[in-house]
Amino acid sequence: MIGAVKVWWHRDYPIAHTSGVVPTEEVFSRMSQPMPPLSPAADRPPRVLSAQLASHEGTRIRIAGWLHRVRVLKSVAFAIVRDRAGLSQVVVRDESTRAQLESLCEETVIEVEGVVTHNPAAVNGAELTQPSIHVLGEASQTPFDLYRPKLQAMLPASLDHAPVALRHRRKKAAFELAAAAVNGFRDALTKRSFIEVHTPKIVGSATESGANVFALDYFSRPAYLAQSPQFYKQTLVGVFERVFEVGPVFRAEPHDTVRHLAQYTSLDVEFGFIDSRRDVELMLHHTVRSMLDAVSECMREQADALDAAPAMLPDRFPRLHFREALTLLSEAEGVDHTAANDLSPGHERWLGEWARREHDSDFLIVEGYPMSKRPFYTAVDPHEPGYSDSFDLLFRGTELVTGGRRLHRYADYVDAIEARGESVDDYASYLEAFAYGMPPHGGFAIGLERFIASLTNAANIREVTLFPRDLHRLFP
Amino acid sequence: MIGAVKVWWHRDYPIAHTSGVVPTEEVFSRMSQPMPPLSPAADRPPRVLSAQLASHEGTRIRIAGWLHRVRVLKSVAFAIVRDRAGLSQVVVRDESTRAQLESLCEETVIEVEGVVTHNPAAVNGAELTQPSIHVLGEASQTPFDLYRPKLQAMLPASLDHAPVALRHRRKKAAFELAAAAVNGFRDALTKRSFIEVHTPKIVGSATESGANVFALDYFSRPAYLAQSPQFYKQTLVGVFERVFEVGPVFRAEPHDTVRHLAQYTSLDVEFGFIDSRRDVELMLHHTVRSMLDAVSECMREQADALDAAPAMLPDRFPRLHFREALTLLSEAEGVDHTAANDLSPGHERWLGEWARREHDSDFLIVEGYPMSKRPFYTAVDPHEPGYSDSFDLLFRGTELVTGGRRLHRYADYVDAIEARGESVDDYASYLEAFAYGMPPHGGFAIGLERFIASLTNAANIREVTLFPRDLHRLFP
Repeated sequence: MIGAVKVWWHRDYPIAHTSGVVPTEEVFSRMSQPMPPLSPAADRPPRVLSAQLASHEGTRIRIAGWLHRVRVLKSVAFAIVRDRAGLSQVVVRDESTRAQLESLCEETVIEVEGVVTHNPAAVNGAELTQPSIHVLGEASQTPFDLYRPKLQAMLPASLDHAPVALRHRRKKAAFELAAAAVNGFRDALTKRSFIEVHTPKIVGSATESGANVFALDYFSRPAYLAQSPQFYKQTLVGVFERVFEVGPVFRAEPHDTVRHLAQYTSLDVEFGFIDSRRDVELMLHHTVRSMLDAVSECMREQADALDAAPAMLPDRFPRLHFREALTLLSEAEGVDHTAANDLSPGHERWLGEWARREHDSDFLIVEGYPMSKRPFYTAVDPHEPGYSDSFDLLFRGTELVTGGRRLHRYADYVDAIEARGESVDDYASYLEAFAYGMPPHGGFAIGLERFIASLTNAANIREVTLFPRDLHRLFP
Repeated sequence: MIGAVKVWWHRDYPIAHTSGVVPTEEVFSRMSQPMPPLSPAADRPPRVLSAQLASHEGTRIRIAGWLHRVRVLKSVAFAIVRDRAGLSQVVVRDESTRAQLESLCEETVIEVEGVVTHNPAAVNGAELTQPSIHVLGEASQTPFDLYRPKLQAMLPASLDHAPVALRHRRKKAAFELAAAAVNGFRDALTKRSFIEVHTPKIVGSATESGANVFALDYFSRPAYLAQSPQFYKQTLVGVFERVFEVGPVFRAEPHDTVRHLAQYTSLDVEFGFIDSRRDVELMLHHTVRSMLDAVSECMREQADALDAAPAMLPDRFPRLHFREALTLLSEAEGVDHTAANDLSPGHERWLGEWARREHDSDFLIVEGYPMSKRPFYTAVDPHEPGYSDSFDLLFRGTELVTGGRRLHRYADYVDAIEARGESVDDYASYLEAFAYGMPPHGGFAIGLERFIASLTNAANIREVTLFPRDLHRLFP
């Protein structure tokens, strides 16, 4: 049938129709040609990024980016153009270009064609001279100057104007760090045969913790946003043995604190055939090591933009049993804390300082928290009833990770759920995995934004969150 | 102060306390020792995965996994054990072990210690003899036999019992493919200076499309689940130039079809300083190439478990303008379709077959859809008013990707929003990015589950979704 049909090909602009079948080779070679550019010069030179400027000395090139700063002096004007690789300096001497430049707000998106000229004093060792400027995207006066070393804005203003504030170098650097950290996380795990999964964020029951869930209208049925992928990642240990997920989790946190968000990025890990929490702690150490390695280059490059000090991580995590932590705190404060069943934020800070002082470590494992403070799926330490086979990892004195071994026998789940006065029926779909054979398993979850906040010494977790969600904030 | 404090270390089990400061070296070397195993033999040999069995011939080792199948013959019994790497055969000759084996349901999680013995007929060229079996996790009778080549269950049953059904090899293989595809996606983009971001899934307005959004109670304020990261990824082009996100998107789809889900994984890309949709199409080609390369090894290894045929992708996508597609369809069917403003699923299928027949390609770009069928942020083709500067990518005759160039000037957004009879105020936080300078930009979004469904010839997208969410399904 097709033999009789004329084949029409859409090729370069302007649209040209061809009767009959165009030879495939020709079509493909035409298809590789771009459409005419939106900017006026059809024969314009290729775009060069700021970082590569110096290698094009003496040639006419094109840069494109945001008008980062304009400085007009008596006989000369300078335009600093920002692209994803950094800054370039453009030197303007002729009158009309100077007038054009003076009419533009900072953050206007421009293309500049010019000649790359050696100048050791310029940011890349070279600058653009004899420029012609073409506006790609207009800008109004910005709410703050992005060229200043620090953003001159209070946190609420910078969050309200996130689309602009995030362009500041110190802001951007934190997110580059976060992306590197996630790469390091993935790397450590895929190397060890973990598979990445994507689990439901809309769930049919709020049983995991009960409190602080967002309720949802799901086709006229009640549903909830997932507080964690806990149940799913455990179920998937039954399928893949080793799984991880990078995804959003949702907490309807009624607290307005500097370290809680209503949505954050959870780095979740779960794996089977472990003997105890120690296997989980070891895997966590591999993972954190890989994350720190991945961010270190980024931190070196952006040292002037980041307040981040490299994190100190010994070959193994220093480790205290919960009881030992209490003893240490009691002796340090001269107050008996040994009957406490949790650590206060102040005590976590003290322990963080202790780990740093005594063990040159920004990290400290506190393990064996009392069962009363852990979720129902937590396994008991078989050697110490009353204490859990679980742990927290403190990073610079703040809880960063919770992990441990989980229950893995169906009967143990039934006992644990009934001990809470709840009905096994409410957990039916979760418990199916355990009814059909599950290995001893455990895992952990790292809060990405908390990690980056601690790493960069951010006073508020919102500073390292692109568009934070909290008690008050739903925009942008 | 700390000098006077006794430092207690928690070390190996049983808990031992030490007075005074333990030398760090010693502590760390002790910390590296695992806790005693949950299984009885403290001196048990290390675990070996099924795939490595043959390389341990003649030695006593331990395997661990799920009891995949039991076969009891007159003089001998066989246990097939499944771990994350595959299957191992265990040969049971003694009476008591045989009796133990007969008492266990399939899917029981066991450890088996035994001697690796050469047997060319066994799955790995070796089997385990003189075994002793230890149960780690009990199992009830499963709803279907996992050892059969195909799962003997209708789709609803396999979804209801996903924790078990997903363990079937044909099921697992699809998710291994999906994980590989996502790796390929990330790889293509990070190589090209894209940065991975995580954007809000709870949004304050339903303006992106208006229809099919899930409503949410957000601290007593109305909110919605994000249908896509579209607004955020565009905003972030203003920050990073090149961004991508892998994350869940939510559609309150009232349709019960084989290709719609209420939550799916969207692979979102957006980047700046483009000239036209052609730049976006080119980046999409790089990305799809990398995804196919990443899955190809996985597909080769799992060829018997997957119905997947390798996808045919030429060096460039074959491409039709929307008008040309209509002309082709009209000529083929002898019916005038040239006034249509969209393609029906049947027409997409026909075009997919046409691309395969004429261009040895499973992929086809249809570009320049009429503006009336594209979202308001879509840019008009400057050379063909009425047609958009956007495209769909069909994969095997189904829409897999939508992409194109977007509006980038504030004034154009105001016009587009007012033309729809809407108020600019409702878009205030979205429009801020455009008020402060945005480059020409564009991007695309790939539906991960659709990609895997087409690749594996799955009749229903739910077959390649771990725990699908749809009109009816909220569990597991």
